[in-house]
Amino acid sequence: MRVYNFSAGPAVMPLEVLEEAAAELSDWQGSGMSVMEVSHRGKAFVACAAETEARFRSVMGVPDDYAVLFLQGGATGQFAGVPMNLTAAGDSIDLLNTGQWSAKALSEAKKFGLDVRVVADEAASKYTTTPAAGSYELHADAKYVHYTPNETIGGVAFGYVPETGDVPLVADMSSMILSQPTDVSKYGVIYAGTQKNLGPAGMCVVVVRRDLMGHARTETPTILEY
Amino acid sequence: MRVYNFSAGPAVMPLEVLEEAAAELSDWQGSGMSVMEVSHRGKAFVACAAETEARFRSVMGVPDDYAVLFLQGGATGQFAGVPMNLTAAGDSIDLLNTGQWSAKALSEAKKFGLDVRVVADEAASKYTTTPAAGSYELHADAKYVHYTPNETIGGVAFGYVPETGDVPLVADMSSMILSQPTDVSKYGVIYAGTQKNLGPAGMCVVVVRRDLMGHARTETPTILEY
Repeated sequence: MRVYNFSAGPAVMPLEVLEEAAAELSDWQGSGMSVMEVSHRGKAFVACAAETEARFRSVMGVPDDYAVLFLQGGATGQFAGVPMNLTAAGDSIDLLNTGQWSAKALSEAKKFGLDVRVVADEAASKYTTTPAAGSYELHADAKYVHYTPNETIGGVAFGYVPETGDVPLVADMSSMILSQPTDVSKYGVIYAGTQKNLGPAGMCVVVVRRDLMGHARTETPTILEY
Repeated sequence: MRVYNFSAGPAVMPLEVLEEAAAELSDWQGSGMSVMEVSHRGKAFVACAAETEARFRSVMGVPDDYAVLFLQGGATGQFAGVPMNLTAAGDSIDLLNTGQWSAKALSEAKKFGLDVRVVADEAASKYTTTPAAGSYELHADAKYVHYTPNETIGGVAFGYVPETGDVPLVADMSSMILSQPTDVSKYGVIYAGTQKNLGPAGMCVVVVRRDLMGHARTETPTILEY
């Protein structure tokens, strides 16, 4: 008696995945333990994590100069993680506000002493539109441009990828990741909570260009540091 | 063919818990979905979360003036979460260093512009001892005193609860929570990754005295803010 859940929260997973997980829940790969109980440093788990990354890279077409990080804290964690890793206090960023998720990214970014420039805001349509390409001005001194390709609450999606030149483009892809081909090389950082398109709630995937790593603010919590 | 895992990582869970979880993995409480797929705002999940909190409160004996938070990011997240919520830059804290986990809490706390005073350090015994009560001096101006009641790597445990007067006592109880009666009222904050004593990896429980909430630094990531 399986049902589908089309609401703007977690999505259903394929039945065969759930059935395999259930069958292995007390004995995974002959270990006598579930995958949740084995050591995260053990051979079997390390191989499982490596395979997960390899499959994700293959399906998404992630180039070698991008790292793939599986983190906790969901996309909400990355609303803070992105500014903490990519900016210093006093920097400027550009943000396209197309609805509730953009607004959350905006409000979190404001905690970090940044000049957050909302270069497009779809308030006039009550967030039922996205801005046309070329209808807004980006700033060359922005540390990054943030946008939300798909907004689940208002139900709007961009039909194009914003052109940001040398400024890293950052996208919250939680509700559309892997639903269509993505040219990863156009982005500096892609992040997504896994609960809609990739798996259960409780994880976040971050795809980050390697040259953007290693520059986190001193006070970045380790769990959010690229 | 179940086995036990006594290494210093995740621990095994009771077989009957895993079997119930497996049986419900494609249809939880007649919802036609697993608990990982239903809306986190739905009645069934909200009731499940409330029951989990109520049971935890009852088993641990958590007084009403303490909040119980289920968070992501494990104890490592709280190594940052505690200083971000309980201090401002320039403040002082006291820390008892009894091994690898204390050292991790120490190293993370140092990111936050604090005067971190290591009031006891068991280096002389190579971290095979804990300091005797009364053998170290605490400071009345400390924002909190941090200790690790049980260290899994060195295998040492405190036989007493440090007396800190009006200064909030903070404990990383990851490897001993609920293994013995705890007088919660002696603590300001208790935190624990759930993977050893409470459940699978991927969650952290924080028990925090309510008067210590609502004072987080502006730049505290929402996922870590009490």
